[in-house]
Amino acid sequence: MASTLTGAPQRVRVELGERSYDIIIGTGLLARAAELFKPLKLGKRGVIVTDSNVGPLYDAALQQALRAGGIETEILDVPAGEPSKSLRQANRLLEHLPSLGLDRRSFVVALGGGVVGDLAGFIAATYLRGITFVQVPTTLLALVDSSVGGKVGVNLPQGKNLVGSFYQPRLVLADVDTLKSLPERELRSGFAEVIKYGAVRDAKFFAWLEREYQRVLRREPDAVAHAVRCCCEIKADIVSKDEHESGLRAILNFGHTVGHAMEALVDYEGLLHGEAISMGMCFASKLSVKLAGLSEAESKRLCALLEASGLSTRPTEKFDMNRLLEAMRLDKKARNGKLRFVLLKRLGEAVVSEAVTDADIEEVFNVCCR
Amino acid sequence: MASTLTGAPQRVRVELGERSYDIIIGTGLLARAAELFKPLKLGKRGVIVTDSNVGPLYDAALQQALRAGGIETEILDVPAGEPSKSLRQANRLLEHLPSLGLDRRSFVVALGGGVVGDLAGFIAATYLRGITFVQVPTTLLALVDSSVGGKVGVNLPQGKNLVGSFYQPRLVLADVDTLKSLPERELRSGFAEVIKYGAVRDAKFFAWLEREYQRVLRREPDAVAHAVRCCCEIKADIVSKDEHESGLRAILNFGHTVGHAMEALVDYEGLLHGEAISMGMCFASKLSVKLAGLSEAESKRLCALLEASGLSTRPTEKFDMNRLLEAMRLDKKARNGKLRFVLLKRLGEAVVSEAVTDADIEEVFNVCCR
Repeated sequence: MASTLTGAPQRVRVELGERSYDIIIGTGLLARAAELFKPLKLGKRGVIVTDSNVGPLYDAALQQALRAGGIETEILDVPAGEPSKSLRQANRLLEHLPSLGLDRRSFVVALGGGVVGDLAGFIAATYLRGITFVQVPTTLLALVDSSVGGKVGVNLPQGKNLVGSFYQPRLVLADVDTLKSLPERELRSGFAEVIKYGAVRDAKFFAWLEREYQRVLRREPDAVAHAVRCCCEIKADIVSKDEHESGLRAILNFGHTVGHAMEALVDYEGLLHGEAISMGMCFASKLSVKLAGLSEAESKRLCALLEASGLSTRPTEKFDMNRLLEAMRLDKKARNGKLRFVLLKRLGEAVVSEAVTDADIEEVFNVCCR
Repeated sequence: MASTLTGAPQRVRVELGERSYDIIIGTGLLARAAELFKPLKLGKRGVIVTDSNVGPLYDAALQQALRAGGIETEILDVPAGEPSKSLRQANRLLEHLPSLGLDRRSFVVALGGGVVGDLAGFIAATYLRGITFVQVPTTLLALVDSSVGGKVGVNLPQGKNLVGSFYQPRLVLADVDTLKSLPERELRSGFAEVIKYGAVRDAKFFAWLEREYQRVLRREPDAVAHAVRCCCEIKADIVSKDEHESGLRAILNFGHTVGHAMEALVDYEGLLHGEAISMGMCFASKLSVKLAGLSEAESKRLCALLEASGLSTRPTEKFDMNRLLEAMRLDKKARNGKLRFVLLKRLGEAVVSEAVTDADIEEVFNVCCR
């Protein structure tokens, strides 16, 4: 696998029939936005949705780059953080749009991480029954995960992502330069999802990560771009085969059954998504040794890579097993209270199982955490 | 054309690939809901969204019929009337759903007219990124128009239908018995849309309406069912060719350029949709004589049928032409302020035109209204 970054940006195509789109990965892309947007034949007006952390760093540059191409945008700001992914913020933005003179050819750009992408995508999906949506992800997590695949939406007080749509962007601009400003902890959290892609779908990429993870975490542009491209290719392939998560796409939830439950138990505070997923993946890999034929050695390789990347691999003491079980059953992926786990047969190959019992979970929990 | 109603309900298929669905038209369908829902393989839990007028008449019967088939539903009520088609009501319902133990196989039934259908459809489209949606329309307008085609959504203070989705129902139960409770004025308003289908797409159906309109307006079940079936067939054919209104579907906006503007000018108060559309169609037919080759005789037939059905055909004095023009330009169907009119070449054949000038409109307005 090549890991050099040439000057020209790389493109990953997400094949979804008439809703196909490109992910453009490279450096210096924000400044070239007008040129890169051009093939979309957008209208001359749009909005940039961003947050109070990312906006001050990049919104003026993006707005200026678009203006140079004759495209006028208004910047809509939300407070940084998960609470902005709410119906309240969605309504506030939607009610503001008519005053901006937008029409059906207008567009919404999401400039930020997953929260901004999901919120802005929901706005784009529902305003005038859907206007053009462009993603400009600025976190590693958003680059490799939430900006690909068309899941958009907001949280309800009762749970995450309970309201939303499947709505594809027309373009994703993945400018790896924007990662320079990402806090270290956010970078490592996003890296958990990078590792996930290798674990569930691509053993060679996993091995590349074992060799090169330090370069990615040092944010070397060629290493970051390569990792992002591999993740996007894997996700694009999966999404094009199963857009609405009726089957294959579910393997991307590796580590998420336990991870989501942990996030719910701490009310999404003090625990980043990737940090929870890291613990969840390690847990699921141990279940996989017991139930799906994963070798002990490969399970250890996974946990070792997570640890080497600065991620936790075992639930801390505050997570009581019974409360975790309860939270797992409340998750929207559970069916009639039946838990669904993604298990690994080997590194690079995952299966979805509804056959995991409470006793299995207890046994692994006791090994994992005590 | 046959106009008899046999005992068995009639089915119109809306062909949309994997999103295809049936419209079942007949009498006594509410009581058979469980049996008719069965092929959908729904979950055992759902909600019935209805309003304060329709709910008391039919919700208990529908709930009971479903319960007899082992399906439990909760009834969610909104105040009758257009103001319920709001983000506020949508949020209220969405925030209530998680407490009902719904999952991805649960469903939403819209029991009511267009407001309930559009609101409930938007809930169904966005809850858990889309759960099953079933329409049980109880107004003539909803039976022939808003329950077919997948446009769902809510209004913003600045305009109607500014937020929403394209989201198809899995089934439409068109029980013509429910029209018995419809106020006379609502029936006539809905009949304007019935006439529209003949005018834009089916001259034979138009001629049938000229002969049989009194039987439809007397709510004779066989006549109503035949009219509903013809309208649904026309709309189903158009929607299956152009789901997202990029071309052909726009002809269904016949009468709507002027009609929507009138509704906006009176703030949707004191003027029903079909009443506005009736005036708009007559106006558009006179434009069509001038610009699209419609014969004077056919224009007169259209206006005569509208009048015979108890509908107005000319804007009353309160509509000032300049204010109407302004309102038309603000409509979301206008592009860069350019008006789009649907014109008739003859009864049964419509075209979309962006070539109508202010002078054309003024001339017809002076003939029509002075």
